[in-house]
Amino acid sequence: MFRKLLTLDEAREAVARLKLARLGSEQVLLLKAHNRVLAENVTSKLDIPPFNRSTVDGYAVKAGDTFGADEKEPVRLRLCGIVNIGELPKVTVTAGEAAEIVTGAPVPEGADAVVMVEDTEKSGEELCVFSAVTSGENVMKKGTDIKLGETVLKTGRILGSREIGVLAALGLATVNVCAVPRVAVLSTGGEVTEPGRSLAPGKIFDINAYTLYCAVLECGGNPVYVGVVPDDKVKLRESLERALEAADVVLTSGGVSVGPKDLMPMTAASLGEPGLVFSGVAVKPGKPTTVALVGGKALFALPGHPTSALLMFQLLARPVVWRLSGRPAAKVETIQALTGMRLFSAKGRRTFVMVKLRKSDKNKVVADPVETGASGAITTLARADGYVEIPENQQFVDKNEEVEVTLF
Amino acid sequence: MFRKLLTLDEAREAVARLKLARLGSEQVLLLKAHNRVLAENVTSKLDIPPFNRSTVDGYAVKAGDTFGADEKEPVRLRLCGIVNIGELPKVTVTAGEAAEIVTGAPVPEGADAVVMVEDTEKSGEELCVFSAVTSGENVMKKGTDIKLGETVLKTGRILGSREIGVLAALGLATVNVCAVPRVAVLSTGGEVTEPGRSLAPGKIFDINAYTLYCAVLECGGNPVYVGVVPDDKVKLRESLERALEAADVVLTSGGVSVGPKDLMPMTAASLGEPGLVFSGVAVKPGKPTTVALVGGKALFALPGHPTSALLMFQLLARPVVWRLSGRPAAKVETIQALTGMRLFSAKGRRTFVMVKLRKSDKNKVVADPVETGASGAITTLARADGYVEIPENQQFVDKNEEVEVTLF
Repeated sequence: MFRKLLTLDEAREAVARLKLARLGSEQVLLLKAHNRVLAENVTSKLDIPPFNRSTVDGYAVKAGDTFGADEKEPVRLRLCGIVNIGELPKVTVTAGEAAEIVTGAPVPEGADAVVMVEDTEKSGEELCVFSAVTSGENVMKKGTDIKLGETVLKTGRILGSREIGVLAALGLATVNVCAVPRVAVLSTGGEVTEPGRSLAPGKIFDINAYTLYCAVLECGGNPVYVGVVPDDKVKLRESLERALEAADVVLTSGGVSVGPKDLMPMTAASLGEPGLVFSGVAVKPGKPTTVALVGGKALFALPGHPTSALLMFQLLARPVVWRLSGRPAAKVETIQALTGMRLFSAKGRRTFVMVKLRKSDKNKVVADPVETGASGAITTLARADGYVEIPENQQFVDKNEEVEVTLF
Repeated sequence: MFRKLLTLDEAREAVARLKLARLGSEQVLLLKAHNRVLAENVTSKLDIPPFNRSTVDGYAVKAGDTFGADEKEPVRLRLCGIVNIGELPKVTVTAGEAAEIVTGAPVPEGADAVVMVEDTEKSGEELCVFSAVTSGENVMKKGTDIKLGETVLKTGRILGSREIGVLAALGLATVNVCAVPRVAVLSTGGEVTEPGRSLAPGKIFDINAYTLYCAVLECGGNPVYVGVVPDDKVKLRESLERALEAADVVLTSGGVSVGPKDLMPMTAASLGEPGLVFSGVAVKPGKPTTVALVGGKALFALPGHPTSALLMFQLLARPVVWRLSGRPAAKVETIQALTGMRLFSAKGRRTFVMVKLRKSDKNKVVADPVETGASGAITTLARADGYVEIPENQQFVDKNEEVEVTLF
């Protein structure tokens, strides 16, 4: 029924073309908005600073009054008052006058510059100014940092500490951000048991629901843990239907022991329109990956082997989570290394060889393959630092060849 | 009182030597343990796999029975039953017999290898085997992946998706992780108003409590938002005392308008033993940074300028949060760039010049300085991509010199 394998590139394109239901946006508290994605342009509703602000401790003056002042011939001004920080100045500076002012306080009416306290000497009601200032000196004019009406941050911006700081500066206590895609995570397989339960003979503990749950967190999604689904055709179908209702994306991993080998893709295909997108990708590991689209929601049926499931999530499902969450594709981190031994590929399939990195005697980075077969399900997962990708038309990568390692 | 400035290196060493109260550990659900730090070594309470497991679909046999089998002279075996996945085999394989088995099922008693289904042909109760297998072939022996009693993950390991997967494989539903340090964040200053409130004349909105709150999240701490503290000596003291009770680390930023200039360090010094560690660091920006230790808890009084506050947090406070949370210091990301213009330093002070990166015509990365003065409090914060560090004994970095930019 689903024999035709897509190449990885075809599978990626098919996923990129999926007509997904768009998620909305929501208003959240600014303190809860860290690492969220801005859903609209933010324009400033105020000038920043909102007033002409002194950038030093000193005296607000008319700059013209200080012209010619130097160490030998100071200018003498009359002190007319004090400007407190955080309130409107109660004084006005007229010709020949100076008002005491601190950093951050509003420059009073009449003054157009501030003389630094180091360049003055106070005696009673009189101020000696030993250095001239030009108009605007030591004053940050209203609106110089941000102008009223200015677009400060744009749609799609990921809110880190600095962006949150900018939004706070605008006086915003809430912000409109893109909704976070909910991603349901299910495991299948008659031998699979939820961690924390007792392990019956012949069974093993589930890994994939846990790794995929965390992988969803790591790419900015909101994982919904469903866990191990009973090994039963009817109950599998019910679980998938419920997951599709509760989430925007559904991830399953593993096969189904009851019924035919392709029960999982067949079930995925029959849940709604348009149904199956593809089943089977010419990659190693990860070949039995199936993707379906049901009412605008994507369903990924990933392989059961933990490393394969995580790899196929990253290659195919993660871009969907990014897209739904309004995030640009994050750059993958890579490193150049020399192969520690010959790496073999699977003929005609894009091969991903899990590798562990070490330093050679000559201080080069060396990538040694980590067994990915069934003989190292957990150790592979824990020990690999990344993977080397071998193209479909290449049979192997020789020992000591330079390769690019994509880091986990 | 606190006139002696420490060099940045001295300040860093003083912070590294702080005798901080150690935080404990806590048992959390495995699904809530993502990005937490393991508080103890984890040893496996089971063999993985817990039984000899078939790695292929096929037939469990005695390897010796297949010796000599090839396409022309197949070996004929008698089918003795089926092994289902997820349960103990109900059959035993004796000489001349084969039992049907699927990937992941336990290899039955008597069998020591599995012949792949592709190498066989079934007719009635008889199985033709066209290819010999050796003992152990296509079988993953009990405990090959992880042995009972083996230490699988060690104290201090940060739990990413793969580590969480390993813990799930061991059957753990909870895990013992290091407590997350609580970091209280306060802003001071008579001109500072909380975002969301109306802005009175002469006031500006708070930025630092928000940026520092997020910066704490970004380094794995648990921020406690206190917000803007009233500009009053007594209330400041009360707020700091409460913050020291509620949190493991306290961050303030900005000065205090009432009272003397050094009220903040004086107050910090008087809150408890041993008190003030240092006040004033020979850096630009960030000079007025004060650090105190009160009953094993660290208090950082950071400068008021948003860029300075964030920079000094990263240089001095972040290592403390890392240390308390059991995390190793994270590597900072750097990039090589050419300066777009001459960068000036402050004589005798370690200078950090905020820079914005761009590509030159020749496709080189160029670092242009972003004004950090009071004239760009918010724009600097939003626009800088990182900073260039200029040593104390260097007056400037010339235009077109190669520099290392530390990225935010």
